[in-house]
Amino acid sequence: MSGVHMRAGVEAVPEVLAEAGERPEDARTAAAVLAGASAVDLVGCGSSLFAAAVLGYAFDAAGLRSRVTEAYEYAGYPPPAGPADALIAISHTGRTPDVVAAARAAAAAGRPVIAITDDGASPLAAAAGYALVDERGMESALPKTRSYVSTLVRGLRLARELAALRGAAAPGLDALAEPAGHVGALLAAAWPQAADLADRWADAPRYVVVGAGPEHATALEGALKITEAASVYAVGWQIEEAAHGTWVSTRAGELAIVLAVGERDRDAVRRTLAGLRAIGAATWVIGDDEEALAAADAATRLPALPAPVMPLLTALPLYCFAHQLALGRGLDPDVMRQDEPRYREARTVMRRSISTAAN
Amino acid sequence: MSGVHMRAGVEAVPEVLAEAGERPEDARTAAAVLAGASAVDLVGCGSSLFAAAVLGYAFDAAGLRSRVTEAYEYAGYPPPAGPADALIAISHTGRTPDVVAAARAAAAAGRPVIAITDDGASPLAAAAGYALVDERGMESALPKTRSYVSTLVRGLRLARELAALRGAAAPGLDALAEPAGHVGALLAAAWPQAADLADRWADAPRYVVVGAGPEHATALEGALKITEAASVYAVGWQIEEAAHGTWVSTRAGELAIVLAVGERDRDAVRRTLAGLRAIGAATWVIGDDEEALAAADAATRLPALPAPVMPLLTALPLYCFAHQLALGRGLDPDVMRQDEPRYREARTVMRRSISTAAN
Repeated sequence: MSGVHMRAGVEAVPEVLAEAGERPEDARTAAAVLAGASAVDLVGCGSSLFAAAVLGYAFDAAGLRSRVTEAYEYAGYPPPAGPADALIAISHTGRTPDVVAAARAAAAAGRPVIAITDDGASPLAAAAGYALVDERGMESALPKTRSYVSTLVRGLRLARELAALRGAAAPGLDALAEPAGHVGALLAAAWPQAADLADRWADAPRYVVVGAGPEHATALEGALKITEAASVYAVGWQIEEAAHGTWVSTRAGELAIVLAVGERDRDAVRRTLAGLRAIGAATWVIGDDEEALAAADAATRLPALPAPVMPLLTALPLYCFAHQLALGRGLDPDVMRQDEPRYREARTVMRRSISTAAN
Repeated sequence: MSGVHMRAGVEAVPEVLAEAGERPEDARTAAAVLAGASAVDLVGCGSSLFAAAVLGYAFDAAGLRSRVTEAYEYAGYPPPAGPADALIAISHTGRTPDVVAAARAAAAAGRPVIAITDDGASPLAAAAGYALVDERGMESALPKTRSYVSTLVRGLRLARELAALRGAAAPGLDALAEPAGHVGALLAAAWPQAADLADRWADAPRYVVVGAGPEHATALEGALKITEAASVYAVGWQIEEAAHGTWVSTRAGELAIVLAVGERDRDAVRRTLAGLRAIGAATWVIGDDEEALAAADAATRLPALPAPVMPLLTALPLYCFAHQLALGRGLDPDVMRQDEPRYREARTVMRRSISTAAN
């Protein structure tokens, strides 16, 4: 059956979130590794890079100055770093070459290194001083979903423990348990809504996802999943950047998905939404801003939780939509078009990975 | 005449580059402000953000750990920063609200602040400890081009002086004068080639620009200008990220523009090019890699200069293409579709700026 693996990934999120409020020894052990760090670099590729972006905000809030860098760029242009500058290296498989290389180089330089991965037997886990591993292991679908949320949970838990160790405030991180209480109802409503929206906008020429702060990472992650699952043009925009030129590519009939979460970005959300609507884009608002929800063509209402933990929920309606859009377009969301020779060849040519045997 | 202002911006670049090799007092004065800095934040929006990204590499190379942040995000989530953490705030007009706010906040905290702007009478220049101003003033076209290159020149010159002050190597920055010797021939060839390419790919469903390192910033800048001038879908991809999912949105008939510059990214460039070609995208290679140039549907050969100064040239063929594509599609590249009510309304609703009077 088409899409069963991606759906299973999304359906595993409630189980992941149920563990988010706990205080297991591994987060505390990892926090101890970072206790004396003067700054932290976070690296990853793809969804792991977007997870790193969310976590960067949390480490800043914990008083540890972060820098988030795409792992290939980090390999080519490593920033000046002293022995007290920590590294958090993120890879679902633990085999993304540049992430593993970053961990090895930092460890060799005597820097504190934490890995976040779903394979405890991976080269990445071996290279790091401490690895936060999701014991559920790797996901079967090519578009990963559970892994993204699970990476956030492990990283946010680490940031929370670090803040406690360092005596920083890190407001909102104490609410890590709250999303679990909402995820069941959210997913129950999201699947049928996603099927409806995918049907309504099956032929949109483009899908834009707009967000600010940590929700900019959600926008990038949601757009990537829409592309991976449904093989369509989808892009994530930082909400203020939308006003600096990119919006000119907007056309009537495309779908703009706006993440309207929290107080800080209310004004930016509302003016972006108004601008895109003026051009004739269809709009879908996901969030807690009643005014924005009322103004949009489609609305997904989320609970108003503290900003740092909202990314644990905001990606989910986008995952459901990506999955349903693929099915509606006659594609299997699990395979990223690897059932077609051209796309299979493209992936084979472009993709690098470290094999287990070689390590 | 349509597009005369944007064309004038591009045509002013040789004059800007002719000054790049000089060692004026202002760069040395600004470098002295940064001499004791422990790290540097760079902020901007739109093209200024992409310029900040290029400059971040140069400051890292000068031994000063950089962090590049979109200015609206910086306003909402300022990273932990001590009094020795400098700020470089970039805005063409000197009136981008979040850039000005960042400069004011950092100055109030006693941090070293450098502004890069084209208006010496702007609120940004007033807020900064020292301003590097392009005395040519502001550009008339809505899509800025000269300003981007000029920002790079001023910022790279500052990084060069800082490296000298700190005794860092900063390889390649000593080649700042070299692009000036190539820009005349480059532009003379770029305009007719751009007209030809714009004609060939006038109806492509999307334009993708792919680059690595500082050329990722060029890719983002080039894609933005294509969108701003020609009102079409254009996106900039980091080259390794292309292999992590975004490529699945590629379709036969679209144009992928690949920046193939320097030794480090040769392998990534060639496999990305091969992958996109496998799917059926048309390809245009801009760079110095003969193998990549030979494999593409169109080729723009650039001189092989040191990586830090290449961004002074790589944007230019993209600027010419954006301009010609707009004309070919019957649009005025100067106005960002502000001659159409829907787009004018969208910009009015979305855009914020600080007026001179208020400051």
